Amino acid sequence: MKKIKMGIIGVGRLGYEHACNIANRVPASELIAVTDKDNEKAKRVADELGAKFYATPEELCADPEVQAVAIVTNTDSHVDMIEIAMNAGKHVFCEKPLAETVEKCKRGEKIVEAHPELIFQLGFHRRFDYSYAVAKEKLDRGDIGDVVLVRCYSQDPIAIIEGTLEYAPRSGGQFIDMSIHDIDLIRWITGSEPKKLWAIGGCYEFKQYKDWDDGDNVSCLIQNENETMAFFYAGRAAAHGSAVETEIVGTRGTLRISAVPTDSLLEVMSEHGVCRECYQDFVTRWHDAYVKEMEYFCDCVSTGTKAHPDVYDGTKATNIAFICKESFLENKLVDVVYK
Amino acid sequence: MKKIKMGIIGVGRLGYEHACNIANRVPASELIAVTDKDNEKAKRVADELGAKFYATPEELCADPEVQAVAIVTNTDSHVDMIEIAMNAGKHVFCEKPLAETVEKCKRGEKIVEAHPELIFQLGFHRRFDYSYAVAKEKLDRGDIGDVVLVRCYSQDPIAIIEGTLEYAPRSGGQFIDMSIHDIDLIRWITGSEPKKLWAIGGCYEFKQYKDWDDGDNVSCLIQNENETMAFFYAGRAAAHGSAVETEIVGTRGTLRISAVPTDSLLEVMSEHGVCRECYQDFVTRWHDAYVKEMEYFCDCVSTGTKAHPDVYDGTKATNIAFICKESFLENKLVDVVYK
Amino acid sequence: MKKIKMGIIGVGRLGYEHACNIANRVPASELIAVTDKDNEKAKRVADELGAKFYATPEELCADPEVQAVAIVTNTDSHVDMIEIAMNAGKHVFCEKPLAETVEKCKRGEKIVEAHPELIFQLGFHRRFDYSYAVAKEKLDRGDIGDVVLVRCYSQDPIAIIEGTLEYAPRSGGQFIDMSIHDIDLIRWITGSEPKKLWAIGGCYEFKQYKDWDDGDNVSCLIQNENETMAFFYAGRAAAHGSAVETEIVGTRGTLRISAVPTDSLLEVMSEHGVCRECYQDFVTRWHDAYVKEMEYFCDCVSTGTKAHPDVYDGTKATNIAFICKESFLENKLVDVVYK
Amino acid sequence: MKKIKMGIIGVGRLGYEHACNIANRVPASELIAVTDKDNEKAKRVADELGAKFYATPEELCADPEVQAVAIVTNTDSHVDMIEIAMNAGKHVFCEKPLAETVEKCKRGEKIVEAHPELIFQLGFHRRFDYSYAVAKEKLDRGDIGDVVLVRCYSQDPIAIIEGTLEYAPRSGGQFIDMSIHDIDLIRWITGSEPKKLWAIGGCYEFKQYKDWDDGDNVSCLIQNENETMAFFYAGRAAAHGSAVETEIVGTRGTLRISAVPTDSLLEVMSEHGVCRECYQDFVTRWHDAYVKEMEYFCDCVSTGTKAHPDVYDGTKATNIAFICKESFLENKLVDVVYK
Repeated sequence: MKKIKMGIIGVGRLGYEHACNIANRVPASELIAVTDKDNEKAKRVADELGAKFYATPEELCADPEVQAVAIVTNTDSHVDMIEIAMNAGKHVFCEKPLAETVEKCKRGEKIVEAHPELIFQLGFHRRFDYSYAVAKEKLDRGDIGDVVLVRCYSQDPIAIIEGTLEYAPRSGGQFIDMSIHDIDLIRWITGSEPKKLWAIGGCYEFKQYKDWDDGDNVSCLIQNENETMAFFYAGRAAAHGSAVETEIVGTRGTLRISAVPTDSLLEVMSEHGVCRECYQDFVTRWHDAYVKEMEYFCDCVSTGTKAHPDVYDGTKATNIAFICKESFLENKLVDVVYK
Repeated sequence: MKKIKMGIIGVGRLGYEHACNIANRVPASELIAVTDKDNEKAKRVADELGAKFYATPEELCADPEVQAVAIVTNTDSHVDMIEIAMNAGKHVFCEKPLAETVEKCKRGEKIVEAHPELIFQLGFHRRFDYSYAVAKEKLDRGDIGDVVLVRCYSQDPIAIIEGTLEYAPRSGGQFIDMSIHDIDLIRWITGSEPKKLWAIGGCYEFKQYKDWDDGDNVSCLIQNENETMAFFYAGRAAAHGSAVETEIVGTRGTLRISAVPTDSLLEVMSEHGVCRECYQDFVTRWHDAYVKEMEYFCDCVSTGTKAHPDVYDGTKATNIAFICKESFLENKLVDVVYK
Repeated sequence: MKKIKMGIIGVGRLGYEHACNIANRVPASELIAVTDKDNEKAKRVADELGAKFYATPEELCADPEVQAVAIVTNTDSHVDMIEIAMNAGKHVFCEKPLAETVEKCKRGEKIVEAHPELIFQLGFHRRFDYSYAVAKEKLDRGDIGDVVLVRCYSQDPIAIIEGTLEYAPRSGGQFIDMSIHDIDLIRWITGSEPKKLWAIGGCYEFKQYKDWDDGDNVSCLIQNENETMAFFYAGRAAAHGSAVETEIVGTRGTLRISAVPTDSLLEVMSEHGVCRECYQDFVTRWHDAYVKEMEYFCDCVSTGTKAHPDVYDGTKATNIAFICKESFLENKLVDVVYK
Repeated sequence: MKKIKMGIIGVGRLGYEHACNIANRVPASELIAVTDKDNEKAKRVADELGAKFYATPEELCADPEVQAVAIVTNTDSHVDMIEIAMNAGKHVFCEKPLAETVEKCKRGEKIVEAHPELIFQLGFHRRFDYSYAVAKEKLDRGDIGDVVLVRCYSQDPIAIIEGTLEYAPRSGGQFIDMSIHDIDLIRWITGSEPKKLWAIGGCYEFKQYKDWDDGDNVSCLIQNENETMAFFYAGRAAAHGSAVETEIVGTRGTLRISAVPTDSLLEVMSEHGVCRECYQDFVTRWHDAYVKEMEYFCDCVSTGTKAHPDVYDGTKATNIAFICKESFLENKLVDVVYK
């Protein structure tokens, strides 16, 4: 049993989660190298998790011991990091979204294509959540017949609204930052691509989103090439918590994931009635999925199997998110044409 | 289609509910006569519902037009009222409990037995609630195999605690007033009678119950003659509402009624999580059951069919409730011997 | 207490439900006259409910005792019936939809306007369902802040698919027949009118809908004049039952009605897990709402208060449903312009 | 960051789970030694997890590198293993129950007392489950006032009935094997000890339990010294899965853990209604709790903090379980007197 020796580039909130998982929760991996543009933080994390510190991604990737790299930097540096890592011969796990423009995504594709011997995986972690995995299995087994409609909700909790607002201007906007997960789910579940879509929304409470050409709440109706329908909604400030709900309506049944986004098996009976408390925090919500996707990545590396979601999933989702934004800004129905 | 002409004796809170149902909600009945020891109230209700007012039960029962009588007076006058009504040749629907002593229940039995031509029904309304009826149907059909355990909860809401405390000293106590419903359910569901039981409890918040030889929260474990088990719990002050929950554990499945005693199909997502609000009020909770039991009574009268729950169900439940109280007061295991 | 003397025109499935309610469940009404183009059926119902039989609507409306009329005929005769009844000086309760064309709706408006002294109410009964009423109350009280998104699902159960298919060709199609309820809810909840909409769908299982220019599953995204968003979905054949779900996402909370469209408070634990069974039948689902809307109608008649939903609600909803159909057939985004 | 070097004695089903957790999921531990009386299995596990194999517990405990030992052997060897390990100076994590007789438990206490410098923790893992931990936190914070009643259900799934029946004769019986968890929870939640109890039950489906002086379904009512009430029920063959439910009724609210023992956030809408599927397997259900209790153990070892549940919790729970069995076999109310 040889563990895959991994390095990590970027140990912000989610990067630190991945670092801990690679070090302590994923049986097949060990963390041996850490870097972050905040060198002090990188040193602390390296120290805490028993890994080497490197001042730059280039140095980390030059370490011949490192077999694979997890990239958890800002979106706009993803493709550069992929390039550095793959050119150094490392397998790559890269957080979503692939890049902040479709052009950059295309460049990412080229880099990945240039290294067919290396594993590349994009971090659309929801596919690895247990509830989603079970749903997909039931769907593939025919339990609910054919897909008719996919409905996706993604809401951040009001509890973290200050951080949300602070990050918003450089997030790429609701479609690129948040809904891209739902766009990936819709592609994954329907096995099809959008044909036409119409996205709408507005600034219902936080008027500042207008300045960023964005809305605090947006939604989109999609007609897929295989005629399945999809609807997604994304909000910035749900009172009840970090709520991601997905529903698959089939011709013979319906699957609903996280209709009550409860964080435990606890029901509280109080003057508010019978209540279930919800996740307040996306890292807690998806903790197991983050572990599972990394286990899968290590498995792909060990066995030399092509990983999914792949680089093209990254480009497609980004492309669709941009078309959503175009539809939203111009308030028109758009025919989806991939660049 | 001839409607059964009914009179009502007692139009307090629950009596008024029955009066309205007889007048307006039960297709097969009409309300033609009203009496109450509060004559003014009786007059008002008679006027509102288009019925005759009578000053006394005797006068009401002397009205030859009246075919059937609903008795919704204080428990200690139930048997006297049954006597007056049946001796006057009226069919009788009588609220539970049958009487406040087993001796009086026995007298009630004699009166009913003396009038085999008249229909008598006791108001254990829970049996007529739609959820209970469906559960019983599934049980009888064998859906959950054989009964292993019946668990019953009955809780009044804290919202009405003042009224609860005021009424408590003359209520007969938690076992006779409240748990008698669960005792009836246990007999109905298991089709058996208690063999041994142990009842415990205490004054967890409202110490005044001690003065009344009672507890604010009590529970009881029952071993039935057919070896099925039963557990009931009764509380005076649930934060979430008027909560009656019943569970039937069978060898092949379990049926749970009102695990979330929600008063509607509404879920509220707020800072408290995902909440379902609960009934605050037993009349609202059981409204449909009160209608259904009266429809059934009218049907029995029309067709001359013996009604259930019958007078013996009333005696049995009262007898068991007293044995629970004895067990509770003496803190001992009691062999159930019917008087 | 004088009961309002009502006649009914049309005693098919839903008409019979209304007839029974008027006769036996609505305290303020009595049923005195019945007609139906199936004279035999009308006679039977009249006999059963103790009312007079009339061979034609004209004869029924000529009865001076009749104060108000409930119209539960086929959609294409609604406006004619309104005309007959109102010209005879009767208050009118008319089932939805108002008419099968917008032009006819307009004619209905004129008739109602010509009789300002008479009460007119349209049968959008969902507004009267207890769960919806509580949700509206919470919304109006500001519990969830401002409306962001309304999501509506309406699904018929697969259990009745044969009847659904038989009726489909003359139903007016999914938008006019089924979604019109959701269109009314969206208008009622948002307090606004659609500005733009896009409707899509297809024949996912029952290809015959194509012949009727319809889909077996359709959905629509709406942008309202006040910038609120709405999404509705309608299906013909839900495995789990007759499912109508409505959700109101607000800036400060969310209300969800009937997310689990359970028909009782029963949970069944079996080899399928923990299950709640669902309504199989719309009349059972909405029974109480049908009673409540008639109670409200009688109250309006008694007090001379203008009733809602009114004739214009009927025209608006019909108009929007037609625009949905246009959008669906031409697969284009449509600017809503009222005729 | 120095990881605690652990050895494991016993790698059957649950032992293997612990071994994997120590090796791969608990950040503060590493697995360096494995033994099992099935030497072949021990070798395989040691190999898989990168640890040393030892033929006997004595040899494993003689390894000076081993700092702490996890004991996951048959119950009847627990105390012997504790003795070997502690005499060799190792910290001990021991699976529940402590021993199969109260006498042996007492011997275990003496061994632990003889080594005050070593950490000892007993594996009542439910206390470490997230839902239980949150409930306890709310309780301790006073959210539901004072404890009135604790209700505990533990059911094995019918899916594994063959294994259950095979193991039953040497399991110690339902009270010692299964209900001991609930006895521990009751002590933990109420902070009190049983004063009187009455246990009943029977062979409702699997008559063979009679031969083992046991029942396939049993229950028990407990009156605690602090007057709180407790009820537990244990069954061998639940149709819906591995169901452990715990409820804490307080004077100001109620906490319910796992009322729907669902294994994911998925709802399935099918012809069975709206269903949530349940855990079929206790290791899956409690996976995170097994990790958490080991993390806590390592933390206690690192910081030299006394661990809970401790050896006395083991003796007390075993003692109570035996009193339950006595009550059940003799069908009498028993005053709890600790040996």
